[in-house]
Amino acid sequence: MNRFWSDITREITPYVPGEQPRDKIRIKLNTNENPYPPSPGVIEYIREMANSDLRLYPDPDSKVLCETVAEFYGLFPSQVFPGNGSDEILAFVFQAFFGPNDLIAFPDVTYSFYPVYAGLYRIPYREVPVREDFSIDFSDYPQGLKGIIFANPNAPTGLYMTPEEIEKLLRSRPDTLVVMDEAYVDFGNESAVPLVNKYDNLLLVHTLSKSRSLAGMRVGLAMGHPELIEGLNRIKNCFNSYTMDRLAQAAAIRAFEDDDYYREINRRIITERERFKETLRKMGIPCTDSKSNFVFLTLPGIKGPDALRLLREQGILVRNFARHPRIADWLRITIGTKEDMDRVVEAIIKIMERQVSQ
Amino acid sequence: MNRFWSDITREITPYVPGEQPRDKIRIKLNTNENPYPPSPGVIEYIREMANSDLRLYPDPDSKVLCETVAEFYGLFPSQVFPGNGSDEILAFVFQAFFGPNDLIAFPDVTYSFYPVYAGLYRIPYREVPVREDFSIDFSDYPQGLKGIIFANPNAPTGLYMTPEEIEKLLRSRPDTLVVMDEAYVDFGNESAVPLVNKYDNLLLVHTLSKSRSLAGMRVGLAMGHPELIEGLNRIKNCFNSYTMDRLAQAAAIRAFEDDDYYREINRRIITERERFKETLRKMGIPCTDSKSNFVFLTLPGIKGPDALRLLREQGILVRNFARHPRIADWLRITIGTKEDMDRVVEAIIKIMERQVSQ
Repeated sequence: MNRFWSDITREITPYVPGEQPRDKIRIKLNTNENPYPPSPGVIEYIREMANSDLRLYPDPDSKVLCETVAEFYGLFPSQVFPGNGSDEILAFVFQAFFGPNDLIAFPDVTYSFYPVYAGLYRIPYREVPVREDFSIDFSDYPQGLKGIIFANPNAPTGLYMTPEEIEKLLRSRPDTLVVMDEAYVDFGNESAVPLVNKYDNLLLVHTLSKSRSLAGMRVGLAMGHPELIEGLNRIKNCFNSYTMDRLAQAAAIRAFEDDDYYREINRRIITERERFKETLRKMGIPCTDSKSNFVFLTLPGIKGPDALRLLREQGILVRNFARHPRIADWLRITIGTKEDMDRVVEAIIKIMERQVSQ
Repeated sequence: MNRFWSDITREITPYVPGEQPRDKIRIKLNTNENPYPPSPGVIEYIREMANSDLRLYPDPDSKVLCETVAEFYGLFPSQVFPGNGSDEILAFVFQAFFGPNDLIAFPDVTYSFYPVYAGLYRIPYREVPVREDFSIDFSDYPQGLKGIIFANPNAPTGLYMTPEEIEKLLRSRPDTLVVMDEAYVDFGNESAVPLVNKYDNLLLVHTLSKSRSLAGMRVGLAMGHPELIEGLNRIKNCFNSYTMDRLAQAAAIRAFEDDDYYREINRRIITERERFKETLRKMGIPCTDSKSNFVFLTLPGIKGPDALRLLREQGILVRNFARHPRIADWLRITIGTKEDMDRVVEAIIKIMERQVSQ
């Protein structure tokens, strides 16, 4: 505590991201990174753009990137907002659309950064419990909300709702802004992007950190009605004129051009995910039907933090949310390569065998 | 205007950065970029780090960069905060230390982003007029301020205050946080960095966009008491876990290691600046004694926007602040290469000759 800290600085509880270990973890499956590298074209283009032009400011509006994304998704560039990772975009979303006199809501089990943003901007919020099976039911949500925020597929459960279900929500609450975080949508699901042209109360948030293997470059996108995008730009232009550096813009542009490569690596991740869930089921280990690049499971009879530790002892880093009572005994394990997942299964077998023999 | 916009989004007046022209401007001297490229080592290191590790998140704390900067300036890493450009850092500073119940102040002629931040976070502020010669006199500032923010050398005047003058300010107002933006300090001036170890009410902001030729990579730094740095980290960790991508961190680290290169290019800029000011004086064109990488001048008898246009017609882009009455007829011209500045002088001579013959 310091006498110069503002009230906000004193009050907030910062988000704690998954560990980025500096020691040698053999298999890092704790932050949902893609096990495959960015496309060779992305690497090549970054190297090409690493030239004397770095002395110049980037395009503050990332116009070429907006045009590329718009063409890819069948939108207009005015419906696209790029940012320095989807976390930055979410922060702008909370400030651009919600205030201290609004009520917003999100599931009690979802991306744990949402309550942090609400705290930062002093936005009153309600955390609506997901059902026993972790599913979201919007009929549980109060009326008169200014916004509903959730991830689809949801995190860390991986459960997915179809565009038809989302459309029902959008139609039933025309005065509620629905912010849907599609960070994990590319792992075999249908995106709600086409609904952006039909509903002015839908804002989608995407990231290039997962399905496009660019966590290290920090690129996120929002897509929605041009007036929503304008609102985001107004906040951004009061915060930082140039949020995306030249190489992040270049990497993102090329990542959309190399779509075939990403489809192929994500197809492999989906195959491994389904194989891993099937193995868990055969072993009698409860897991959700995740449609993401992670699986959400609980080892019977083993506390979450203990399971985390036992896996770490075998060189495997995963994520546990010990501070969240409803999911304290669950683990979120990112899908890696086939070899990674074989090692995870071996490790789990070892842990369960020891558990039985105790 | 849109029904989902928050009050803040409706009220704010965004900052307008200098134009990043897409058409062919022969000489771009409007945003204080360095005319020389980043060091060959920086380019090489970025290319080396553009590898498969980009699939992984960056270090959220930029530890190696903090250590590098700390060693460079003789500080502890806990006294260093890196960010996605100094604009982002300034935004965090306004939110971390000031609130709606505080009064802060800055000069009426200074970096025009400061009032924008104050608007974004609803911080009451006073703009204290600089003297007729554009100098800042802190005896003009009211007592009881929570913060004083200014650039040193100041923008767009280029006027510089010595560490002795700054120390007097720090001592006389121990309960006021002095935020000093040293974006342009490397152009021949003494930094106040050593005062960071002596005063807990000083926060310095630096950028790698000017003297280290990395505007395109977005890197800024704050330096101050560890509790001030902790306050910034609290806000940052409620906003975006990973503000700096892997390549921005790499570029910044290498830029400090290649200090000899940057000293040499900045020495050239200082030489050109002094030569340009001398030429202007001989031509009877008023200019301030800028200690920055730009010169602030006014062409007698020519309105600022007209001067801007007449230079643009000759392929030279400079900056004018037409919306600011006190300096509406002044131009800020970034110092380029010797060839650039010879062309600028030729262009000014042409404009002044036409002016006389009219």
